[in-house]
Amino acid sequence: MDKSDAANQNAKSMSIIITKGTLDWAYPPMILSTTAAAMGLNVTMFFTFYGLQLLKKKLDLSITPLGNSAMEMPMAGMHMQMPNMLAMLPGATAGATAMMKNMLKKKGVASIEELREIAVESDVRLIGCQMTMDLFELKRDDLLDDIEIGGAATYIETATKSDINLFI
Amino acid sequence: MDKSDAANQNAKSMSIIITKGTLDWAYPPMILSTTAAAMGLNVTMFFTFYGLQLLKKKLDLSITPLGNSAMEMPMAGMHMQMPNMLAMLPGATAGATAMMKNMLKKKGVASIEELREIAVESDVRLIGCQMTMDLFELKRDDLLDDIEIGGAATYIETATKSDINLFI
Amino acid sequence: MDKSDAANQNAKSMSIIITKGTLDWAYPPMILSTTAAAMGLNVTMFFTFYGLQLLKKKLDLSITPLGNSAMEMPMAGMHMQMPNMLAMLPGATAGATAMMKNMLKKKGVASIEELREIAVESDVRLIGCQMTMDLFELKRDDLLDDIEIGGAATYIETATKSDINLFI
Repeated sequence: MDKSDAANQNAKSMSIIITKGTLDWAYPPMILSTTAAAMGLNVTMFFTFYGLQLLKKKLDLSITPLGNSAMEMPMAGMHMQMPNMLAMLPGATAGATAMMKNMLKKKGVASIEELREIAVESDVRLIGCQMTMDLFELKRDDLLDDIEIGGAATYIETATKSDINLFI
Repeated sequence: MDKSDAANQNAKSMSIIITKGTLDWAYPPMILSTTAAAMGLNVTMFFTFYGLQLLKKKLDLSITPLGNSAMEMPMAGMHMQMPNMLAMLPGATAGATAMMKNMLKKKGVASIEELREIAVESDVRLIGCQMTMDLFELKRDDLLDDIEIGGAATYIETATKSDINLFI
Repeated sequence: MDKSDAANQNAKSMSIIITKGTLDWAYPPMILSTTAAAMGLNVTMFFTFYGLQLLKKKLDLSITPLGNSAMEMPMAGMHMQMPNMLAMLPGATAGATAMMKNMLKKKGVASIEELREIAVESDVRLIGCQMTMDLFELKRDDLLDDIEIGGAATYIETATKSDINLFI
């Protein structure tokens, strides 16, 4: 019996397409999914495009400050926006990534690895996109064991029955 | 009696998560929400992540031309795309922001401040994300008075009852 | 009898707002829409904002590697992420665009032009946003003949009746 059979037939449901694979954009789908699962919803996450990165066994996520004019980080009590010239310097991506990880840790926010583990334990259906695997030459073994592999049709079939549908 | 009680129980409804805080990406949620409210829908806007910026009392939004290869602005009748090298020059973000503001004004498009005011007057529910406030060290007093503060669970509870759900 | 009248009244339905106009982000809405149409859903695509570019008769889409830290392309068996400094070099956007087009072709993925043609032939409703046309000074004649022109109200009216709603 797979997770789709096990799902509570009377519960509300949510399906999310996850298309982004940066450290910052990994948070919204992970927080929404684990919260919804905790509230009793049946949750499906379909990882495709750049978002398929989030199903890799070994996560290596970064955040780029470039082209992200609304990224603002509190540093020593001041709110700073990083101008594009600064964001261009060698190491800026690594610096912004470290800064964000520190901020999240300081605030007690779970890591993406931890949230992903909670999703698995909460019986969230995690589906990796077959077409994206082919396109980016990812092998089944690069991805978590505890997921399904499917295509756009798998997603659409699920989404037609979901109360909440989101594209992230 | 708060806005959720006052809502018309028979009307259609729309819930939007707003996660981006740049000048350009502020427009889609504001235009969709005010249009839907004018059509009689019950509208909820949940501002989180970079989008929480849009609830600040004092808005200071900009647009970055970097990494946005589809940004095209009509200038003197010609449609130009700004190459990344140009977009890197000091002042390019300020320049693109001014250019976009001028274009919007010339075309008679309302400012984000004006659209936000219309949303408030149209009884759109505006919810600021508590977790994001903590993360970015924003105080309640930095944000508009006329909003609620809530979390992911508040959003999901509302979204399960909404006819249209969007993640922007 | 237009496409909305012709639609199967019992079929499931999907409405997508398309707001991005780069080569990479053109794929998710085109693949989801053509797949859903092939599965018998009534599909509406509302092209607005930067996404209106995708309705131009003459497509000229590019992809920018800047600010896209999760873009990873397989090259000669190695998976490489392009650092922002490299992505800044003159020609990097053109290079990334050519690289992505080559990869898609090698993998047998249809072009955006081909997917768009399939959408038209599958009776997907394609709607161009009037307000965006005005804003970016696009003329009716710049866009495909086989589309409707509408506004946010047209979209919302359709979305309230759709089983799946996505904002891309």
